[in-house]
Amino acid sequence: MKSEKISDAVVRRLPVYLRFLNELSRREVSTVSSQELGQKLDLNPAQIRKDLAYFGDFGRKGIGYDVAYLIEKIQQILNLDQQINVALIGAGNLGQALSNYNAYVKDNMKIVAVFDASPGKIGGKINNIEIQPIEMLDETVRNNNIRIGIITVPAAEAQRVADKLVAAGIGAILNFAPTILKVPAEVRVHAADFTTDLMSLAYYLDGGKEMKDHDSKMAD
Amino acid sequence: MKSEKISDAVVRRLPVYLRFLNELSRREVSTVSSQELGQKLDLNPAQIRKDLAYFGDFGRKGIGYDVAYLIEKIQQILNLDQQINVALIGAGNLGQALSNYNAYVKDNMKIVAVFDASPGKIGGKINNIEIQPIEMLDETVRNNNIRIGIITVPAAEAQRVADKLVAAGIGAILNFAPTILKVPAEVRVHAADFTTDLMSLAYYLDGGKEMKDHDSKMAD
Repeated sequence: MKSEKISDAVVRRLPVYLRFLNELSRREVSTVSSQELGQKLDLNPAQIRKDLAYFGDFGRKGIGYDVAYLIEKIQQILNLDQQINVALIGAGNLGQALSNYNAYVKDNMKIVAVFDASPGKIGGKINNIEIQPIEMLDETVRNNNIRIGIITVPAAEAQRVADKLVAAGIGAILNFAPTILKVPAEVRVHAADFTTDLMSLAYYLDGGKEMKDHDSKMAD
Repeated sequence: MKSEKISDAVVRRLPVYLRFLNELSRREVSTVSSQELGQKLDLNPAQIRKDLAYFGDFGRKGIGYDVAYLIEKIQQILNLDQQINVALIGAGNLGQALSNYNAYVKDNMKIVAVFDASPGKIGGKINNIEIQPIEMLDETVRNNNIRIGIITVPAAEAQRVADKLVAAGIGAILNFAPTILKVPAEVRVHAADFTTDLMSLAYYLDGGKEMKDHDSKMAD
């Protein structure tokens, strides 16, 4: 049996597939072709077939993918067939705003603990979760099987928080602080960035540029 | 001359290319191949060549892409060769947090006005920008050539704000409110969503699943 790591780009596309498949499921659509997925998600159907083929043999030629089965499989692949507990570090503006999303995060992910370094905030609540001192992080993370940390502290404090999360045994970090974090290879960090969203919107301001016909001389 | 709209997926990849190209430029790397871009961004090199070929003939066979030239071209394509003024509507936690990113938004995009409906907030400042009453939106947007709006108001108010932005002639909206906005076809809306980031992180918690060897029977 051959085995190989799946690329991060593929992993990042899976929640996008899952979101659309959940929408299909709500609309009681039971099968979907890679063409339909590709059209909806603006991806090459061959790319989609390749992405999904990494994980097993889901599709049926001439019929497409079974929506319910594919949802179940992608949830399994993403570890979302179990509850994933999340900690939020930084009860400032962004932290409070993100905790409001808790109600909208589906698929078994939940912010269960909030930490802050500021004595004035300790004991307060955001979204019914008590704000704990950062000194409690290690104990709380271990006792509550918290596996992902969301960092929303200022850039200057982010590395120190990341170190604490790593020491407490966390497996992944979503970093909103505008700084590059250094973590061991086995801990995964994604940087959240809304600026690429903004930049892609600018494209549409003139109604979108058009493709030009040209002799395509490819780089290699 | 054939002309055709470029897909949104391609447009959304351009800022990602641009960010990496800017990094190469800072490192004084002058050319890059589609293989290198593909490796860094976990995309098929053929997909990258196809994306960039939409806009013209940038690459040179056997050499690759000229980094400086490609940066210039992508900026032009994204309309980032001019200053794009942005309005933020909603001076709550998320709005305040996003305005902190202003310093990090490169490429000529800038939040130049902030609005809120709450009388208690009017006249206050976030990041040195005075918070204006929502009633001033139309006049301010028109007088300051504001072309993009970021909506960070509660879901129940988001549609009303979007309607005002559309009436003021805005071209694109980045919507952080967890609701679907109805706008005319000529206005572009992107929904900001950090939940897909979180979901893709969950994949890595077990060290990542592995690809299985299998007979790949493709769906169509």
